[in-house]
Amino acid sequence: MTNGDIFVGEMIGTAILILFGAGVCAAVTLRFSKARAAGWVVIAFGWGFGVLAGAYTAAPLSGGQLNPAVTFGLAVDTGVWDKVWIYLLGQLTGAMIGAVLCYLVYFAQFQANVRKTGTTEGTADEPLPTLGIFSTIPEIRNPVANLVTEILATIALVLPLLAMVGNNRKVEGIGIGLIPGGQGIYGSGIVILLVSLLVVGIGLSLGGPTGYAINPARDLGPRIIHSVLPIPNKGTSDWGYSWIPVVGPLIGGLLGGVIYNAAF
Amino acid sequence: MTNGDIFVGEMIGTAILILFGAGVCAAVTLRFSKARAAGWVVIAFGWGFGVLAGAYTAAPLSGGQLNPAVTFGLAVDTGVWDKVWIYLLGQLTGAMIGAVLCYLVYFAQFQANVRKTGTTEGTADEPLPTLGIFSTIPEIRNPVANLVTEILATIALVLPLLAMVGNNRKVEGIGIGLIPGGQGIYGSGIVILLVSLLVVGIGLSLGGPTGYAINPARDLGPRIIHSVLPIPNKGTSDWGYSWIPVVGPLIGGLLGGVIYNAAF
Amino acid sequence: MTNGDIFVGEMIGTAILILFGAGVCAAVTLRFSKARAAGWVVIAFGWGFGVLAGAYTAAPLSGGQLNPAVTFGLAVDTGVWDKVWIYLLGQLTGAMIGAVLCYLVYFAQFQANVRKTGTTEGTADEPLPTLGIFSTIPEIRNPVANLVTEILATIALVLPLLAMVGNNRKVEGIGIGLIPGGQGIYGSGIVILLVSLLVVGIGLSLGGPTGYAINPARDLGPRIIHSVLPIPNKGTSDWGYSWIPVVGPLIGGLLGGVIYNAAF
Amino acid sequence: MTNGDIFVGEMIGTAILILFGAGVCAAVTLRFSKARAAGWVVIAFGWGFGVLAGAYTAAPLSGGQLNPAVTFGLAVDTGVWDKVWIYLLGQLTGAMIGAVLCYLVYFAQFQANVRKTGTTEGTADEPLPTLGIFSTIPEIRNPVANLVTEILATIALVLPLLAMVGNNRKVEGIGIGLIPGGQGIYGSGIVILLVSLLVVGIGLSLGGPTGYAINPARDLGPRIIHSVLPIPNKGTSDWGYSWIPVVGPLIGGLLGGVIYNAAF
Repeated sequence: MTNGDIFVGEMIGTAILILFGAGVCAAVTLRFSKARAAGWVVIAFGWGFGVLAGAYTAAPLSGGQLNPAVTFGLAVDTGVWDKVWIYLLGQLTGAMIGAVLCYLVYFAQFQANVRKTGTTEGTADEPLPTLGIFSTIPEIRNPVANLVTEILATIALVLPLLAMVGNNRKVEGIGIGLIPGGQGIYGSGIVILLVSLLVVGIGLSLGGPTGYAINPARDLGPRIIHSVLPIPNKGTSDWGYSWIPVVGPLIGGLLGGVIYNAAF
Repeated sequence: MTNGDIFVGEMIGTAILILFGAGVCAAVTLRFSKARAAGWVVIAFGWGFGVLAGAYTAAPLSGGQLNPAVTFGLAVDTGVWDKVWIYLLGQLTGAMIGAVLCYLVYFAQFQANVRKTGTTEGTADEPLPTLGIFSTIPEIRNPVANLVTEILATIALVLPLLAMVGNNRKVEGIGIGLIPGGQGIYGSGIVILLVSLLVVGIGLSLGGPTGYAINPARDLGPRIIHSVLPIPNKGTSDWGYSWIPVVGPLIGGLLGGVIYNAAF
Repeated sequence: MTNGDIFVGEMIGTAILILFGAGVCAAVTLRFSKARAAGWVVIAFGWGFGVLAGAYTAAPLSGGQLNPAVTFGLAVDTGVWDKVWIYLLGQLTGAMIGAVLCYLVYFAQFQANVRKTGTTEGTADEPLPTLGIFSTIPEIRNPVANLVTEILATIALVLPLLAMVGNNRKVEGIGIGLIPGGQGIYGSGIVILLVSLLVVGIGLSLGGPTGYAINPARDLGPRIIHSVLPIPNKGTSDWGYSWIPVVGPLIGGLLGGVIYNAAF
Repeated sequence: MTNGDIFVGEMIGTAILILFGAGVCAAVTLRFSKARAAGWVVIAFGWGFGVLAGAYTAAPLSGGQLNPAVTFGLAVDTGVWDKVWIYLLGQLTGAMIGAVLCYLVYFAQFQANVRKTGTTEGTADEPLPTLGIFSTIPEIRNPVANLVTEILATIALVLPLLAMVGNNRKVEGIGIGLIPGGQGIYGSGIVILLVSLLVVGIGLSLGGPTGYAINPARDLGPRIIHSVLPIPNKGTSDWGYSWIPVVGPLIGGLLGGVIYNAAF
């Protein structure tokens, strides 16, 4: 597995993840979307099946990690750190591409996000803040509490994920690590499905306070894109909060790897 | 696998897909349906499990492609184009049959779709437009944006699908192509399940702007049937829009195949 | 596999199916239930996971058919009819037991289904009709249309189910039939999961007009129990409609078997 | 498998289960949560995927039982009782840890649960009772009926679970028991997925009357934590009801084991 394979795999896989994930946030947020106001269950399953689509696509090239927190957790588990930088580069690049793709899919909806003062057409014509489609926003702005939430939610991702990958390794006799062969870290398809449903569960259960970044690339890449895209009335990109969904998940990924190594 | 097998398999499988898919749109749209206004999550899972039902049924006969965009993507991947026409013929025929079956399942509901002026019975007695049960309608009519949406959403179907099929091929050692043996292109049942959940995810995340045709047969076949069925107050069949959910998914399927071949 | 095994397996499995299925209808219908008015998606998944629970439990004893329509479809497929009567007996007995169990689980809720005239406590104290918890009721009463709906919805169950069982047989090399060994008709657990999700899909897509009996035992057994249980203000058991959810699914099961044999 | 492995496995696994389960109840209950009022389907899937996450993590260490009722059912099935106490100790400890973790994830939300008299900010500023986030509360307080509900709902968990484990054992040729090797009681990952969806189904169908404890540790551990945590306006810990979600599930687990042994 070459550096090029890893970069391309992580880039494509993360782009698909963000296309689905930002897409479902656009779907429930934007006016003139058939899924507007469709509720939290739609958001959680949309992100989870984005993991399914992206990780399966990336698996033969790069293992389909798609998340620096997962990459950190696996590096702690295996002790192999020298390829981490290329994983992160591919993930961040892919996340930015995915955000642009989401913008293109919902282009007409974003263009319609304008204040139509002096008219009465439509039922609601105030512009909507758009950052929540791209990146996470806490319900209550409290840096310590928000950081704790992201750390714990990421541990709740990485620890079971390592167990799912590790258990499967024992059953199927395949290798694990940063440079896996065949199906990547996930062995057969069932493990990717399990991880996808795990991500659905994290969204349902732990997404309430901060919107569950649990992935630095997922939050930072689309935030960069939000800050440069010419979306009408797009509102703030909220850079003051941006360090929490990067630092929190990285700490969580490291702790997840440490706990896994200590217990198993 | 004879041409007859392929035609029958794709016809039956696509008929089942459309029976479920148009069925769930009827279920949430029509008055006097127990699932009326049940929301976007119901639509997305209904279409996804329609893929499960249809593709599994068709798999031993034709591989269960059920979608000209998937057929195009596989043809690009394998380089085998000579059976494509019979796949498309079976898919379009099946889509028309499925639309008729949906009409029969909801026959009494369609008959009740009448304006009852001068009465006060029931809570709402305006006739409803019925095209949305059969075919897709954009929320914002913008040909370029709608076409881009359909192209990108179809790439988001075909690229992961090819990866799912291809990954599974490596694990199970089975063949892939337009004329597969045994389980068809999907190998064991798990791949059909994964593709079904992928379709659920596309609906949740990318269906907002245009209603996610992502399948020319799924849109064109039922539109033909809508234009000929004697549904009371059925409204327009909107032929002016009909080329977009045909052309967009075909382009998306081709691009999905090209990206898969280039990257993997 | 003795007649006793078959009877016990089908009885336990169908009892579990109806406990979950009637249970979810009670959950969304009755006042003082935490899931009241939780919507159609809850009903469809509740019934589907009832199939998962019941069929898996019954599989080693009887194959886990739990539905006379499935039994008829398999009998057409295999040509073996001599054990059908014992399957049906177990299914009907189990369906009645399951309805009683649901009544016991929701006992306090059923007892609270009283008209409290002259009081103002609570937000709604009219008694609710309870038949819909036990058996199906059409939204529009039209015998021919209702029968067609049940026939087509049952074909949409039995034809893919036979394909799922048959495809799996080829992969795993196991037998199929009315008297299966090991895992019963379903082979490994994945097929039961697929059938469960298929039942979810039928509920979402085809349940709108009649509430999708698609199983004579599921409708008739609980209707018998509804007619004898001492539920306050229970309302009619609607015996005039009761033949449709028996006859329709039986015809659908036979036709599903015939189509499967003709095409595969 | 040492006592230490069992204790650590059950502790970690049950902590994850409760983090997800209490988390989803917090998510739909608390103000300033993105998932507030998201409905019963969210609760049922959140708990089910908590089982997925927790059982998979615990499986290699302890088998991933996470529930004294499951432990009792397996002990009846295998006749091995001498390790039961260590399982229960790990489960109760883990449940308490999970409740604390949930409190930390939603810390800012819990702190905001205050009455802000004399202000008009926000749309609703009454404090909410918080016990329902940690432990179960019946809709109608009726000890006999509540006990029957918990017994039957737990049988509906343990009997199919034993069948899923037992069926899988035959297919994969692995052992079963209180001290399993390899993947624990669940064999390959598919069985844990099936059990997770079974738990979703129990929530959807049988959770209406009492909120489906079906697990003594899940109810008692968080109730202890609720009684000691400094949550503003937390309301009663309702110790008068607390014996029912302990005794009911234990009886149900024993009966599930007895029925399984008698029938299979």
